[in-house]
Amino acid sequence: MIERVLILGTGLLGASTGLALRAVGFTGPIIGWDKDSRQSAEALARNAIDAVASHPLAAAEASQLILLAMPVFAILDWMEQLAPILGPTHLVTDVGSTKSLITRTGNRLFNDSGRAGFLPGHPMAGKEVGGASQADAGLFQGAVWIFTSESAQDSADENPSAMSIRSAELAASWRHWVGAIGCRTLDLEANRHDELVAWVSHLPQFLATALTALLQSELGAAPELTAVGGRALREMTRLGSSPYSMWRDIALTNTETIAATLQALEQRLAHLRENLRTPELRDEFDLANRFRKG
Amino acid sequence: MIERVLILGTGLLGASTGLALRAVGFTGPIIGWDKDSRQSAEALARNAIDAVASHPLAAAEASQLILLAMPVFAILDWMEQLAPILGPTHLVTDVGSTKSLITRTGNRLFNDSGRAGFLPGHPMAGKEVGGASQADAGLFQGAVWIFTSESAQDSADENPSAMSIRSAELAASWRHWVGAIGCRTLDLEANRHDELVAWVSHLPQFLATALTALLQSELGAAPELTAVGGRALREMTRLGSSPYSMWRDIALTNTETIAATLQALEQRLAHLRENLRTPELRDEFDLANRFRKG
Repeated sequence: MIERVLILGTGLLGASTGLALRAVGFTGPIIGWDKDSRQSAEALARNAIDAVASHPLAAAEASQLILLAMPVFAILDWMEQLAPILGPTHLVTDVGSTKSLITRTGNRLFNDSGRAGFLPGHPMAGKEVGGASQADAGLFQGAVWIFTSESAQDSADENPSAMSIRSAELAASWRHWVGAIGCRTLDLEANRHDELVAWVSHLPQFLATALTALLQSELGAAPELTAVGGRALREMTRLGSSPYSMWRDIALTNTETIAATLQALEQRLAHLRENLRTPELRDEFDLANRFRKG
Repeated sequence: MIERVLILGTGLLGASTGLALRAVGFTGPIIGWDKDSRQSAEALARNAIDAVASHPLAAAEASQLILLAMPVFAILDWMEQLAPILGPTHLVTDVGSTKSLITRTGNRLFNDSGRAGFLPGHPMAGKEVGGASQADAGLFQGAVWIFTSESAQDSADENPSAMSIRSAELAASWRHWVGAIGCRTLDLEANRHDELVAWVSHLPQFLATALTALLQSELGAAPELTAVGGRALREMTRLGSSPYSMWRDIALTNTETIAATLQALEQRLAHLRENLRTPELRDEFDLANRFRKG
């Protein structure tokens, strides 16, 4: 069904998708483009893509599946550029980290008669360091790849938002390939997605950033002391290396929800701090011990 | 120099020490004891110890090196029991997580004429799940094993606190074995140790407990949702499985210092939360990105 794929943004997720599709038997051309030509050259050198597009809009017209693999605001920019030139034989999909704004914008610009289809997606996979050089065909093995819709009704619907028949077929085919590269797919309302990832992804990230920035302030002048910390410290600060460029867009497009989770954690830390010498501390450890055992 | 070792407490650290000593060529008897006889039986079955002591005080008298490998208050209890029966041909050492109280108590009960020596120690190694069944001969490879003294002057001194000549020789021998099992040793004042580990060990632990308890409260009823989180969530919540029994003693013996680090983190989180939409967020990411690169 999908004969030709264009990956716009050949960083970690884009290039890994190319490698993964090839590894599980996708045989059509995989074309790539990145605003940073070093990323597309690296993706090409690693065989994550077959060619670098010189004109990404023309390459989009010539493909059935266009994957947007970049930070959220860059995805929104490309959606604006692609909508006028694509038609009902195309499907645009993405890997953006927040979904409410992208999903609303997708239904406004796409998914209407004569328009291309837009399927909002989000693979729950990544590394703290991005770039094509980190790409990995196995990155998505065992991960959840979420697809979102504006309302719960759309989510239950096989062909949401009045996609053309051809776009809907391409969407079904894309879901097949996402399964083939090792993902479990999950359909969620976009708002519910943004609330859920605020807890399981954004809160851990901003927490790791705050902890790591604090430790850098306190101990940065004496790096031999941070060497004292073991695996626990390494793990709790690994995400401190995550790039601002990606997380800025997440913070800007999920602000209220992230702020609520951070405030809840601040209260929880204060509660724990006030109970370091009381039996309440046991309750917190017991509750934490139950996580994932439920 | 050290011919016979007694390990009191054959959980993760005690049994791992036994395995590690044997792996690097210690040939003398390694005797073990644990208040939980399943732990000593497991340590024996795994060849971490050669025999289980039926009378730990008698076994201590018959050994040169007595290693206390248990939570802090249990170590303090054993120090009280051992001091009256041991003499200047013995060395007692420990792996306790906080060192101010243990170091002070050691100098009060030991390290005097006619008394055994006491060398306070703390290997920066562990796992979130304890027990002899988790023991690992390689646990200490690349870790820092800290030794502490009450004052900076003691710390610089080769034979601090008036240890007997024989005890001091045993201490030098124990430092040799700690190096042989893969550790870099570091000498610190006990108060400085407790401040440093508050940042690099206790803060990450209590933070992970608070985060994991919060996620259990918010998402515990829907464990399929926590499956959405990837490696980042797994790492940030792994320490949520740590046992209260060990951390209670740490919280009770380093309360003020831990509380100060928690409060600093609460303020840092609030600052980040208030700046999710401002350029200050970039500064926090930049600072965190510098950690370990210094």
